[in-house]
Amino acid sequence: MEASVSTTAAPASAQLQHAMRRALTLAANGPARGPHARVGCVLLDAHGEVVAEGWHRGAGTAHAEVDALSHLAPGEAAGLTAVVTLEPCNHWGRTGPCSEALVEAGIGRVVFSVEDPGEHSGGGKERLRDAGIPVEEGLLADEVEEFMRRWLVAARLQRPFVTVKWASTLDGRAAADDGTSQWITGAAARQHVHEQRAAHDAILVGTGTLLADDPSLTARGDGGELLADQPVPVVVGERAVPEGSRILQHPHPLIEERTRDLSAVLADLFAREIRSVFVEGGPTIASEFIRRGLVDDYLIYLAPTLVGGSRLALGDIGVETLDEARRLRVTAVTPLGDDLAIVARNQSGSSS
Amino acid sequence: MEASVSTTAAPASAQLQHAMRRALTLAANGPARGPHARVGCVLLDAHGEVVAEGWHRGAGTAHAEVDALSHLAPGEAAGLTAVVTLEPCNHWGRTGPCSEALVEAGIGRVVFSVEDPGEHSGGGKERLRDAGIPVEEGLLADEVEEFMRRWLVAARLQRPFVTVKWASTLDGRAAADDGTSQWITGAAARQHVHEQRAAHDAILVGTGTLLADDPSLTARGDGGELLADQPVPVVVGERAVPEGSRILQHPHPLIEERTRDLSAVLADLFAREIRSVFVEGGPTIASEFIRRGLVDDYLIYLAPTLVGGSRLALGDIGVETLDEARRLRVTAVTPLGDDLAIVARNQSGSSS
Repeated sequence: MEASVSTTAAPASAQLQHAMRRALTLAANGPARGPHARVGCVLLDAHGEVVAEGWHRGAGTAHAEVDALSHLAPGEAAGLTAVVTLEPCNHWGRTGPCSEALVEAGIGRVVFSVEDPGEHSGGGKERLRDAGIPVEEGLLADEVEEFMRRWLVAARLQRPFVTVKWASTLDGRAAADDGTSQWITGAAARQHVHEQRAAHDAILVGTGTLLADDPSLTARGDGGELLADQPVPVVVGERAVPEGSRILQHPHPLIEERTRDLSAVLADLFAREIRSVFVEGGPTIASEFIRRGLVDDYLIYLAPTLVGGSRLALGDIGVETLDEARRLRVTAVTPLGDDLAIVARNQSGSSS
Repeated sequence: MEASVSTTAAPASAQLQHAMRRALTLAANGPARGPHARVGCVLLDAHGEVVAEGWHRGAGTAHAEVDALSHLAPGEAAGLTAVVTLEPCNHWGRTGPCSEALVEAGIGRVVFSVEDPGEHSGGGKERLRDAGIPVEEGLLADEVEEFMRRWLVAARLQRPFVTVKWASTLDGRAAADDGTSQWITGAAARQHVHEQRAAHDAILVGTGTLLADDPSLTARGDGGELLADQPVPVVVGERAVPEGSRILQHPHPLIEERTRDLSAVLADLFAREIRSVFVEGGPTIASEFIRRGLVDDYLIYLAPTLVGGSRLALGDIGVETLDEARRLRVTAVTPLGDDLAIVARNQSGSSS
């Protein structure tokens, strides 16, 4: 009976789901920053038992599939099902293409979640199918999309993922009328900012903020010590960075972008392998990123204070009438001391 | 042994706490609006058993203590402990003073939570002590204060409790640059507003909002039907209410306050037995209430949209520098559809 053959010859759907969740857990061992995707891979036998696992550890190391295969003796992979979070790559980089490695190992079937949007690395599924290997895609795609969101957005748009952060009072002000703005938010919110800096490849401000505040743009712990991960500092604008600016003491060399063209800035940063940017640059630059539709995540710290007046956290974003409002979807509201951290993204899922 | 006499002759502390929580539950049966306090009373015997319960049902009806006593036969109250949320009143109104009733009934001891701030009704504890009855105060005072907050604030400040509401975008705007503001918030938030209207004695707008929007100022259900409780509509400002305004169709007659002096407005409303006011009047009047320190609760609906521009939800509130910022404490954040409802009060606990 074919039906019984089919149920015994391949992992069942629940086993595949379980394996994909395991692959996601493995993927999370990889580095969250930088140009390389975090990918996990599980190899299953016909009964759905895990035979080998692998994940990608970063630049120059084996991809998840190759890492998993490396745990097996020659011939042992024949007929196994590979469950992998991202479409196997089809690209000769510092490591060979995973599609090729899977074909060579005699893998019997490939189940992946999300298609590789890479210009050079995509096409793995076609290569596998051409070799006669059945390929299924889309398993737990929502979960994997969310997990890889920054990397996927960057790969699809060919620019870094952009998080714009601002802090404001409950009435939307970034400062009081005399310019005083320290501290609108409390210590817990400020520490949260430092953790976000550490979680991005780059931190970006405009020359206005640089000249006004002389920020160090480092990610620091609550004792003031430098955190292990530091974002690359980026300053955007036509004015020069003054000698003696604190930003010149940053652990990473400063990237000066002497332009106001934010798309050009992002293209340059992408070429430098920067895949996520934390924009902390004050109302002007935040408004400009929003106006140009270049924002993926919004991180808004709301302090429970009211100040009134004219110092707004956001200025003109090119909206004339309510129909043109940027409609966001709040994905998290987190109390931080007396403050609230609100994370939002564009309602449509695409950039603003 | 005196110690054993004392533990058997009166309810223990845990029994008193339990009774006070029960009194609070009873109090909640009373009407939440209007000039009368919601009060509950439990009469305990020496073993801490409940002998009778009572609560205040509103104007012209027996107070909680008298209600509880009314369930007992003559003489049966002698020696009992009365546990009551609010200090027994000492006032000859439509009903006699509760302190007098407790003395006459031969109550053995009175435990209350919060002192009666009423100019005429206070002084009950002195009357009881003068009659030789032991009186203790402050049991579960924080809980009872919170439960009676609107009534207590109104009684202490001799003006209605003021809730200022506004709706804004995440960037603090009340409308887009062309004035379009419908709908910034979604259906769930708008229905929440109607429920808040129904929970206040009065609803207040300025003539600017009246002339611009011609609001009905009724509390309606999600089918548009009038809710059972309707706030009294109040319009503040020097301009006349045009004939044919929708507000003139309100179930309650309109109160026109032809002045900009908000303290005078609140004093007049207090004299009319209005104890809570819901201010829905647009940026100008909201800012003015805040500037004058006349706000007890802030209710802010935040829509996850950005519009930029110049139409702010709050204007100048008299703050020049950050040290003068109105510092609030957020007491609730509630998701309403895509929106957030944020409830806050002044950090000090006093009015802004």
